[in-house]
Formats: sequence, structure tokens, C-alpha cells
Amino acid sequence: MGIATNPNSRIQQGEETRRKILRVAVDLASGQGLDSLSIGDLAKELGMSKSGLFAHFGSKEELQIATIEAAERVFGAAIIKPAREEAKPGLARLIVLLERYIRYLEDSVAGGCFFSAAAAEFDDRPGRVRDRIAQSMRTWCDMLEAETRCGLEAGELDASVDPQQLAFELEALTHHANFSRRLMADESAFARARTGIRERLRSVSTADGQAVLESRVP
Amino acid sequence: MGIATNPNSRIQQGEETRRKILRVAVDLASGQGLDSLSIGDLAKELGMSKSGLFAHFGSKEELQIATIEAAERVFGAAIIKPAREEAKPGLARLIVLLERYIRYLEDSVAGGCFFSAAAAEFDDRPGRVRDRIAQSMRTWCDMLEAETRCGLEAGELDASVDPQQLAFELEALTHHANFSRRLMADESAFARARTGIRERLRSVSTADGQAVLESRVP
Repeated sequence: MGIATNPNSRIQQGEETRRKILRVAVDLASGQGLDSLSIGDLAKELGMSKSGLFAHFGSKEELQIATIEAAERVFGAAIIKPAREEAKPGLARLIVLLERYIRYLEDSVAGGCFFSAAAAEFDDRPGRVRDRIAQSMRTWCDMLEAETRCGLEAGELDASVDPQQLAFELEALTHHANFSRRLMADESAFARARTGIRERLRSVSTADGQAVLESRVP
Repeated sequence: MGIATNPNSRIQQGEETRRKILRVAVDLASGQGLDSLSIGDLAKELGMSKSGLFAHFGSKEELQIATIEAAERVFGAAIIKPAREEAKPGLARLIVLLERYIRYLEDSVAGGCFFSAAAAEFDDRPGRVRDRIAQSMRTWCDMLEAETRCGLEAGELDASVDPQQLAFELEALTHHANFSRRLMADESAFARARTGIRERLRSVSTADGQAVLESRVP
């Protein structure tokens, strides 16, 4: 107060603080769960006051929603953006998306996948948080389905393929691998998911598709 | 005290009360989670005193472990026992186990699958409860694998089949269907799991196996 400051830089500072809070929130929630994410713990971790945190997020629900959105940005930067740069639409991008997702799960074994953990916590609790998580998961499933459809249109996949069914099966393999690795400490889970994906795609690929597979899958 | 009672009938009564408590505990935990299962809620639901409940289970952890064991008995009675009676070992029993499991998931949509919910809650929390859940899930996976192996030995499945890999893929389909149905309200999830299972088994069945499939899958 009293000191003349540039209002733009104050807004920038506020946004920077918000981003910093959300980075820590995503990390904490990946480990302990989104619902256990308390403003108290977060304030302690950040060396901030609880009231300072409340100034950024009016309620626990707002904080949870903002954390989901931040986790989506992390996911986008780690998986979706590089896959778009690395591979053209269709089978190639589908393979890169899945492989990057599996690597993301492997790397985050300690914390686990933010979305799988949050989804399991909230699937039985109707409300805005659950709806926002479901929306994130649906976006990811839709993306896999769109690339499958694209591969079909490009003649990389057999005409008999049902894109929604295939996307469901591919997503099932990665999802179950994460679950088996984390709950049952199944060390072979990610290798099993990779094998399942490769064989499933091979079984429905045309000659063009086989060429894409050979070039993308080790 | 003071009144002469038959000690055997007193033990029987204690066991009957314990069973009654655990039936309610499994129902509550399927809905709200195993960790949220409080002795207070349970006492209220049963019209018992907290101290009465504590006499049966010395601690929350003991109650959680006993609840997992009770859920295992429910699962065994609904899925495993009838599958053993209904179908001979190998592909036929594998199909019946999976179909009964899917029906069990469909029927319990409100509460959801006790084990999936408990597993998601405890996968990041090392300890006896988590180990007991993991043991239950491993028993189920091992059962699917054993029937696959049996189908292989009976010449119902192609010699190239890796039983552990196939069991992993089949389990992934049912697990993901439960998840998609509950979080994303995907009404087609169970149909997708059934289609995935049928096509996956068809792709690795010998002529003998195809005959089993035709007779078991609608």
C-alpha cells in the first residue's frame, strides 16, 4: 500500500504465485490423493500462510478444480504436445501417445498417475470435481479414438475396425498396467501393456499400417 | 453372567454377530471406501455400541482386514463357486469366470466393486491392509491365468499363447469397464469389455476352442 507499483507486474506476480502453488498441489495430490490435499499441508509445503492460499482459491473445491487443470497442462506438455510434433495423425501418433503415456506412468511410479488416483477417489462422489476429472479422462479417450479413426481413414487399419472399441481396449491395457504395477508391484506390467498394444495393433493393421508399426515400435 | 448358558451357543452367537457386522461393513465399504469405514458409522448402521464393535475387532485395521476377507467370501460365492460348478477347467471356465465377474460389476454399479475401490484407496499406502487387498487381486489374476494355461494344455488355445499375458489383457478389459462405467458413466463399457474378451479369445482359439466359445458366448 502507499508504494506506487505497476499494476501489471502485480498481476503477473499473482499469476506466478498461483502457478507455483498449483505445481506443488499436483505433486502432493499425485501422492496422497486430491481429496487429502489440504490447504494446511499446501501452505506448509510452500511456506505460505493459509489465508494467503485462500486469497488465491476461495475454497477447497476451487483448489481441487484448479489442480486438475494444472495436472492437465502437465499431461499435455509431457505427452500430447510432443506426440503432435513427433508423429503425423493416425497410427503413428496413436503409437507415440500410448508409448509416451506408459513412460509417464513408469516415471511417476512413486506418485502414480494423478488422474487415475483422482478418478478412483471421486468416482463415487457426484459433483464438480468428479465431473472435471471425468472430462479430462474423456478428452484423453476421445483423442485415442480420433487417432484410431484417422488411421482407419488413411488405410492404415482394417476397414472392419471399430475405433471406439479399439481405443477402449488400448486404454484398458495402459490403465491396468498402472494399477498392477502400483497395487501388486507387478514389475512386468508395463512390458505386458506394450506387448498387448503392439499385438492388438498388428492384428488390425493393413500393409501400410504394418510399415508404420515397424518404424515406431522397437 | 450368573445364568447358565451353553458355551457353544454363546460362541455361535458371537460368530453370527461378527458375520452380520461384516456383511454391513462390506456394503458400506463398497460405497464409501474401506478407509472411510468408521467403527462409529458401522455401529450406527447396526444399532450397536462402539464398544460392542470393538469387542469383535480390536482396531480399525483388524476390522478392515476382516472386511476384505468377508468381501472375498462374497466374491467367491457369487463368481468362483458357481463357475466351478458350471464349467469344466480351461476355456469354458475362463469364459464363465469373466462373464460372472462382469455381471457382478453391472449389478453393483451403485456401490461398485469392493476390491477396485479398496485397491485404488490403498495402493499408495504400504501396510497390512494394502498387502491383503493385493493378495486378493493376485489370487483372482492367478485364477484367470490358471484357466488359460489349462485351456492351452487341453488344446483349446493356440500353442503360441502366453497365459500370463492373455490373463493380463482379459483382466484389463473388465477392470477398465468398471472404471469407465463408474467415472465416465459410459453405458457401453460392459458391452465393450464383452466384445474385447470374445474377440481376443476367438483370435487365439483352436477349432476345439472355437467350439467351446460358440457354446458359451451368446
